[in-house]
Amino acid sequence: MLCSGLWPPAATPFAADMSPNIPAFVSHCQGLLRDGADGLAVLGTTSEANSLTLDERIALIDSLPAAGIAADRLLPGTGACAVGDAVYLSRHAARLGCAGVLLLPPFFYKGVPDEGLYRYVADIVAGVGDSRLRIYLYHIPQMAGIGWSPDLISRLLADFPDTVVGLKDSSGDWQNTRTILETFPGFAVFPASEAVLTEALALGAAGCISASANINANGIANLIARLRCGEDAADAQKAVSAVRTAITRFPLVPAIKAVLAERTGDGNWARLRPPMMALDDGQLADLRADPALRSVLQ
Amino acid sequence: MLCSGLWPPAATPFAADMSPNIPAFVSHCQGLLRDGADGLAVLGTTSEANSLTLDERIALIDSLPAAGIAADRLLPGTGACAVGDAVYLSRHAARLGCAGVLLLPPFFYKGVPDEGLYRYVADIVAGVGDSRLRIYLYHIPQMAGIGWSPDLISRLLADFPDTVVGLKDSSGDWQNTRTILETFPGFAVFPASEAVLTEALALGAAGCISASANINANGIANLIARLRCGEDAADAQKAVSAVRTAITRFPLVPAIKAVLAERTGDGNWARLRPPMMALDDGQLADLRADPALRSVLQ
Repeated sequence: MLCSGLWPPAATPFAADMSPNIPAFVSHCQGLLRDGADGLAVLGTTSEANSLTLDERIALIDSLPAAGIAADRLLPGTGACAVGDAVYLSRHAARLGCAGVLLLPPFFYKGVPDEGLYRYVADIVAGVGDSRLRIYLYHIPQMAGIGWSPDLISRLLADFPDTVVGLKDSSGDWQNTRTILETFPGFAVFPASEAVLTEALALGAAGCISASANINANGIANLIARLRCGEDAADAQKAVSAVRTAITRFPLVPAIKAVLAERTGDGNWARLRPPMMALDDGQLADLRADPALRSVLQ
Repeated sequence: MLCSGLWPPAATPFAADMSPNIPAFVSHCQGLLRDGADGLAVLGTTSEANSLTLDERIALIDSLPAAGIAADRLLPGTGACAVGDAVYLSRHAARLGCAGVLLLPPFFYKGVPDEGLYRYVADIVAGVGDSRLRIYLYHIPQMAGIGWSPDLISRLLADFPDTVVGLKDSSGDWQNTRTILETFPGFAVFPASEAVLTEALALGAAGCISASANINANGIANLIARLRCGEDAADAQKAVSAVRTAITRFPLVPAIKAVLAERTGDGNWARLRPPMMALDDGQLADLRADPALRSVLQ
């Protein structure tokens, strides 16, 4: 079954020694599901996944089924520059019964041909060797420097129709999202922002995987529910878009964690691994004073 | 003792099963030293380091002292997006007695503040906890998307004077190389191209760490030797620059490996890990026919 609806890329809290705080992570994930998330896109960019060792990533994935969250509600990020690392993480996710994996391209490399990215995916599929594997391509060219073009998606869908099943579009380029939605009906496309949900769901998007869902899962889940019932949800769309606009005025991951720290009173959320930095005092004051964020700070 | 002279970023050959071919790698490294290299900047970009798992990288590093190459002639790349990975590799190198480590910034992240990159280095220094650690910053903004600014270098030199000792400038921006050379006398600066060697050594550069040294170590080592003796080496500079210009008309790493495959007759060199791709037949024909490359193809 394809993923659909709201899959927040759950943020990763760090203890005072900067190790992942597993209990706080599990609690946050449980809260997101309670707030209406359909699943959890753990170990994405917002989760600081690339700042975590492979062992830390495995431990975070495993902590959720251990806490009673069904593995089929998990969509972990498993892309890596080294095919061997991507195979290791993706195989673990497939064996665990995860809904799928969110696959970054090998982001160190720039200017590489589509054929090289095709082989990256093909080698991962072969290396995992598990028919349960479901790949959602993770398109975030402003961070990765490379991405999944429509031509490449077309070829991957033709050759791996049961495995390559969807895409998260973090490009922020609505025209790209629209092109993919229109070109590949049935492909599970997730925009990375709830601000385009009304338009995207109307064009057949599967849902959204949005950083700001960490702080507004309830609002976004309600919007999706109303849109699915065919209701006019302009007011709900406006409300979630206002939160999104407000939070993206700040460095996004630090701001998400600052809101979580404020809301929970748990200092674990205020920590980020370098090179990301917590908001400074001036930014924090601005964030606390922003009327559009009042609803998510409490 | 600081690194100086020619430190080729040794390419990594792959066996038919795409695992690193350790014997072929050791043989290549021994050949580079025989040809006049002062040391080996293994596990750099040309080495496809980011396509290798941590275990593979450790095995490649360890293979060289095991074959009788002194560890103090090794400058392995150890930068990684996760501080934990960079600490693991850097600690291994320091304990082994390597001359230093070449440190990429955490390249997934973009638009991060210098303070975040400072903390990345500070956390690695603290995490390694070994006074033998010597860090050479690896500046390659066109791949990493982030880099080491003069302001940041200045701060790192002030706070870690015994540890942060040099920089490889792969920016291809001669003005940047010149600025760093002029601003930080005594800092061991390595341009990534032998085409600027005459000018760079005159300004106090330590040497060069150049991809094309994989195929022209002898020529570059001779140029450095003559420049160090104060000779007019315009002819030698012109000759190595001609090879450099010719090889950089092709995708660089695939072309380096194609030359090594031609020269050695060893098909292990023709393989690259995705997303990089071997030269196609047309490119190979062009490469073989290039008069400027004749001297390095034999």
